[in-house]
Amino acid sequence: MSFEQACKDYHSKPKPGKISIKTTKPTETLEDLSKAYSPGVGVPVKEIHANPEDAYQYTNKGNLIGVISNGTAVLGFGNVGPLAAKPVMEGKAVLFSKMAGLDAYDIVINEEDPDKLINIIEAIAPTFGAINLEDIKSPDCFYIETELRRRLNIPVFHDDQHGTAIVVAAGLLNALSVQNLEIHQSKIVLLGAGAAGIAVAHIVLNLGASPELFHLVDRNGVVHEERDLPDFKRPFAKKANMSLKDAMTDADVFIGLAAPNALPEHYLDLMKEKSIVFALSNPVPEVSPESVSKRLPSAIYSTGRSDLPNQINNALAFPHILRAALTLKIPQITPQMIANCATAVANLIKKPSKTEIVPTAFDKRLPEAFLNALSESS
Amino acid sequence: MSFEQACKDYHSKPKPGKISIKTTKPTETLEDLSKAYSPGVGVPVKEIHANPEDAYQYTNKGNLIGVISNGTAVLGFGNVGPLAAKPVMEGKAVLFSKMAGLDAYDIVINEEDPDKLINIIEAIAPTFGAINLEDIKSPDCFYIETELRRRLNIPVFHDDQHGTAIVVAAGLLNALSVQNLEIHQSKIVLLGAGAAGIAVAHIVLNLGASPELFHLVDRNGVVHEERDLPDFKRPFAKKANMSLKDAMTDADVFIGLAAPNALPEHYLDLMKEKSIVFALSNPVPEVSPESVSKRLPSAIYSTGRSDLPNQINNALAFPHILRAALTLKIPQITPQMIANCATAVANLIKKPSKTEIVPTAFDKRLPEAFLNALSESS
Repeated sequence: MSFEQACKDYHSKPKPGKISIKTTKPTETLEDLSKAYSPGVGVPVKEIHANPEDAYQYTNKGNLIGVISNGTAVLGFGNVGPLAAKPVMEGKAVLFSKMAGLDAYDIVINEEDPDKLINIIEAIAPTFGAINLEDIKSPDCFYIETELRRRLNIPVFHDDQHGTAIVVAAGLLNALSVQNLEIHQSKIVLLGAGAAGIAVAHIVLNLGASPELFHLVDRNGVVHEERDLPDFKRPFAKKANMSLKDAMTDADVFIGLAAPNALPEHYLDLMKEKSIVFALSNPVPEVSPESVSKRLPSAIYSTGRSDLPNQINNALAFPHILRAALTLKIPQITPQMIANCATAVANLIKKPSKTEIVPTAFDKRLPEAFLNALSESS
Repeated sequence: MSFEQACKDYHSKPKPGKISIKTTKPTETLEDLSKAYSPGVGVPVKEIHANPEDAYQYTNKGNLIGVISNGTAVLGFGNVGPLAAKPVMEGKAVLFSKMAGLDAYDIVINEEDPDKLINIIEAIAPTFGAINLEDIKSPDCFYIETELRRRLNIPVFHDDQHGTAIVVAAGLLNALSVQNLEIHQSKIVLLGAGAAGIAVAHIVLNLGASPELFHLVDRNGVVHEERDLPDFKRPFAKKANMSLKDAMTDADVFIGLAAPNALPEHYLDLMKEKSIVFALSNPVPEVSPESVSKRLPSAIYSTGRSDLPNQINNALAFPHILRAALTLKIPQITPQMIANCATAVANLIKKPSKTEIVPTAFDKRLPEAFLNALSESS
């Protein structure tokens, strides 16, 4: 059977979808149901009405994530709309459950206007203990997340940005150490200024990269001040124009968060010999494993693919950071917490090597690492 | 231990709340997860994008109810807000799961403006196979339900209205038969013109009650045309003013959907001897069981209480009507379907008696009864 058919079967048989509701309390007798519903449920209603914090004691709010998308940037497919985004959000709920014992409701929203979407998510937020935004197109996602973080008193986490950033940064820290490079002395080229690219740019600078040696590149070339730039790219602008080729010359690090084959193969020849190449477009990377092993045999190579070493997989971050935030009752996850998580994940690899720079998503030490990282900085 | 403490414990121990997410597909191996999430989840995304109906094949949409409230009319407590409504909505999800194998997400929404609430529910509707509105104050609930039914192509069901109406009407049909009364010849007094009252008024007339002999009464007295009436009360207005006492004189049926002790006990003396008294305010009825057995010993008496005979409990309706609507892929539940459900529920009692006019919520024949009632009229 083809992988495609296997995926169709997985999602449809023996019944449609991947998640379901289970009850966690006895429901066998009329007396049980008189506690679960009328009249007994009136007791927690009164308690929560008197003291809103009691919602964490009497409902599942404190273990419940809203996995929310409007379907405007789904996987590599772009704007497929809310309904077609639903299998992805269900899949995210599967991972929250499997990796961290968190419950998640997949909520797909038919609204593209950022302000209206913000209002909707704000209105339904009392349902949840935290909100995981997902597959919302850039640049809308930056404004939406910022505004929701300002308005809500529960953690709001855009996984496409920060989940990716944590794992990329963890891998980068270990790769730099394997190559005997210092982050503040390394020339870094980041290709891609979407949700993930901008978040990686922030965390890399936060972790000590030199602004002078850091180059953000989008489809129009290196981001520089003479271009008409949106606010979210401005912090990374170079003074003057420069080509991708200029940027790649003597680069120590290339990070691709762009598109399949976006990096011309021969640009690899411009890089330092002991370099680092993260080609994270998935499943087709910015530059192929064959090109890298031919042209840069000493480089550390990482992709989003599970069939190659050094997989950058945000499933090792998002379940645990939200689990830790809920356990610690943190009102919002700060940039410093996100940077600490990257360091904590990197530190789980005691002896990094060319083929081991990040833990797998199944590493049992991840929950504690995230808990410690968040409690240090909260 | 007091019932109050038992309810607190039930909702909080060993962990908060009453429901949780479970995965319904294998998630043990990396290969499983590569189907559940990236890259395999791309297959159903593409299928649904090409053919939106495939959402019912590849996601849980077709088994998923949104139990939605803004907390403006919660149980007998009134407007306690969305957070304090959450235990009730979780309880509803428990009943959907237990009674009909349906999954339900409790969604509480911090929005009181009807038009804004409609827009929010419309936007999140792609998530669900059907929507169960709950504990939304009257008269807003009428407009909200009507407008959502007009806009959405999934069933929208306001349980406080129609779930109650089905069970009240079923009980009434059997009570009339026990008392040898014909519905079109019976003088009926309905006290309460809120969500449930208006829905019961509609179904009772739909089932053949005479408009001349039907009296709707609210806290300002009998609804009549000389009063300044909102649209939703107008269909039930009498030509001229009349007191509750006038209405109760020679009444065959009293239905209370109002407030504790709302019916002066001595008005029972005005009713026909072989009458029917439904006092459904819960847990304290409009008139006490003691008063009825003293003043109207031949009457059939029914309440919302589980500790007395003839409990009117909408848990025997809402899980099954939505289960049937989803199974039959009905775009909306019509008033005729609702009336058919009442008849079908009544018919489950082969030999009605003074103490048995409705089935219990655990009656195994309910799913088929609702399925038949909806398929007849669809």
